Amino acid sequence: MTSEQSRIRGVLSPVLTPFNADQSPDPDRFVRHCRWLIDQGVGLAIFGTNSEANSLSVAEKRKLLDTLIEAGVPAAQMMPGTGACALPDAIEMTRAAVQAGCAGVLMLPPFYYKGVSDEGLFRAFASVIDAVADARLRIYVYHIPPVSQVPITPALVERLMKAYPGVIAGMKDSSGNWDNTATMLREFQPHGFDVFAGSENFLLATMRGGGAGCITATGNVNPRAIVSLYHHWQDADADQRQAGLDRTRAAFAKFPMIPAMKAAIAWKTGNDAWCNVRPPLVELDSAQRTALHAALDEVGFEMPNAAMVA
Amino acid sequence: MTSEQSRIRGVLSPVLTPFNADQSPDPDRFVRHCRWLIDQGVGLAIFGTNSEANSLSVAEKRKLLDTLIEAGVPAAQMMPGTGACALPDAIEMTRAAVQAGCAGVLMLPPFYYKGVSDEGLFRAFASVIDAVADARLRIYVYHIPPVSQVPITPALVERLMKAYPGVIAGMKDSSGNWDNTATMLREFQPHGFDVFAGSENFLLATMRGGGAGCITATGNVNPRAIVSLYHHWQDADADQRQAGLDRTRAAFAKFPMIPAMKAAIAWKTGNDAWCNVRPPLVELDSAQRTALHAALDEVGFEMPNAAMVA
Repeated sequence: MTSEQSRIRGVLSPVLTPFNADQSPDPDRFVRHCRWLIDQGVGLAIFGTNSEANSLSVAEKRKLLDTLIEAGVPAAQMMPGTGACALPDAIEMTRAAVQAGCAGVLMLPPFYYKGVSDEGLFRAFASVIDAVADARLRIYVYHIPPVSQVPITPALVERLMKAYPGVIAGMKDSSGNWDNTATMLREFQPHGFDVFAGSENFLLATMRGGGAGCITATGNVNPRAIVSLYHHWQDADADQRQAGLDRTRAAFAKFPMIPAMKAAIAWKTGNDAWCNVRPPLVELDSAQRTALHAALDEVGFEMPNAAMVA
Repeated sequence: MTSEQSRIRGVLSPVLTPFNADQSPDPDRFVRHCRWLIDQGVGLAIFGTNSEANSLSVAEKRKLLDTLIEAGVPAAQMMPGTGACALPDAIEMTRAAVQAGCAGVLMLPPFYYKGVSDEGLFRAFASVIDAVADARLRIYVYHIPPVSQVPITPALVERLMKAYPGVIAGMKDSSGNWDNTATMLREFQPHGFDVFAGSENFLLATMRGGGAGCITATGNVNPRAIVSLYHHWQDADADQRQAGLDRTRAAFAKFPMIPAMKAAIAWKTGNDAWCNVRPPLVELDSAQRTALHAALDEVGFEMPNAAMVA
C-alpha cells in the first residue's frame, strides 16, 4: 500500500476481528494482526465485511479504533468501514474515523431496505457527509450487492461526485462482475475516483485498467503475493502471478471464507482462539479444518512471521 | 388486541415513526400515534420494518421507548422490534424491552450476512436469550425474507422451542407465502407458539388455522376494519370483510408502503410533517400523493379521530 497525492492506494484488507471465547473482541490480538499486515505492505480496511464489522456495535468498533491509534498503528494506512443501516451510526463512525486521521472510509449504503431508489441512497450518503462536515473526509463507496443487496449504480456515483467533489474518492467493487468494474474504471477513474477491486482475482485487470488496487479478504492471509503483484503488475510474469493468487484464493473459497481465513491463522500461529467467530457465523469443524489444511498445503500456502499474530 | 393467558394476541402494527424536518424522531407525535392505535384496539409493534426502525440508532429507539413508558402508554400492549445485525445491539434493546415490561419482542435474525446456517442463527438467538437472562422474555421471531434475506426455517423454530420453551413465544410471518404460514400453524401453534400473519391479507386464513392474529403495516392507517375482522372472523360475512381489507391494502400497495402510509396520515391530519421519512426512503412526490388520495377515496378510506394523531 502506498500513498500518492495524499490518496491511499495499493492492497488493503478488511482486517479480521479476533474474538475471545466469550465473543468479545480481543484488542491486543487485533493490534498485532494490524501491525503484521502493515509489515506485509497491506493497508487496513478495518471494519469491513470480512471483519464481521456489522456484527459489532458502534461502541465496540470505536474502542477498537481507539486501541489501534493508541498503539501507534498509522491512521494514514486505515480505511475503516463506517456504513450502517442507521444514519446516526454511520455518522458517528465516520466522524470518529476522520477525527482519528484515517486515510478514508469505506461506506456501505444503508442495507436493510431493499429496492430503494438512487435518490434515497444519495440522500443517505449526503446526510453523512453534511453531518460530518469535515474537509478531510474521503469516502470510498462500497458496492457489494451479493451481501448488501443494495447496489451502488454508476448514476449514483456520478451524482455523488458532482455534489461532493474530492469527498467521493473511490469505490470498492465487490460485485464480482468485471463488467461493472470496467465501467467504473472507464467512467470515473480518470476523474479522480479510485477504483479498488473487491478481490485479488481482479487485481491485474484493475491495474491494467488504471485502477488503484484491491481491497481483499485474503490480504489477511496471503498478503505477500498479492502485494507483490501490485508492485509488479507491468512485469512479464504478471499473468502467472495472478494465476498463483487465484489458486490460493480458490483454496480458501472452498470453505466459508471468514471462518476459513481464521482457521488458517489459527493453524499457522498455533492459537486456536483465532477460530472464534461471532454468530451468525460458525467456525469450521474439525473435518473442515483438516480439509482446509490439505487444500492450502496443495497450493503451497505459508504465512510469513505468523508468530507476530499469535 | 387482547391478552389471553398473559400472551399478546390480535392485531398489532409496526408503529410508523414520525420524523421532524431535520430527520430526528418526533417523540410527542409518536406518543399520540401510539395512543390512537391503542384506542383503535391495535397493539404496538414499535420498531418494526415499517417503523424504519433499522434506520434508527439503539439510543434513539431506547429514548422513544422510554418516552412511551413515561407517557403511560401500556407496555403490556407493546412488542418492540429488537433484532439487529450486531448482537450487542440486539441484547441492549431486548433487555430494555423486558425491563420496561413489554409483552414480548419481535426479533429479526442478524441480517447482514446471507446464506448463514441454522446453527449460526440458533447461536445468535441463544446469545441474546442467555445474555438477557430474564424469565419475562417472550420472543416472537421475525421471518421476513423479502427484506432481511435471512429466513427463519421450521427446523430453526423447532430447535429454539426445545432449547428455550416459553421464551420462544411465536412468529411474525412476513414471507408472503401462505404455505409457510400454514406449516407454522400446523407444526407449532398447538405447542404454544403464536403465529401472527405478517399482513392482514392472511388474517382470516390465519385465524381459521388457529393463529394469534396479524402484525400489519396498514394497522397504522386502517385499524378499525382489521380489528373488526379479528373479532368477527367466525361471522358469516368474514370473507366479505377480508375482501374489504384486501382492497384497502391494495390501494396503499400501489405506492411504496411506508411513504404512502405516512402521506395518508398527513392527508387526513393536515400535518405534512407526517410525510417525512429517513433515507434511504423517499417521501411520495406531489403526483404520487394525488394518485394516492384518489386510490384511497376509491376504496372509501377514512381515519377515525385523525386529529388525535396530528
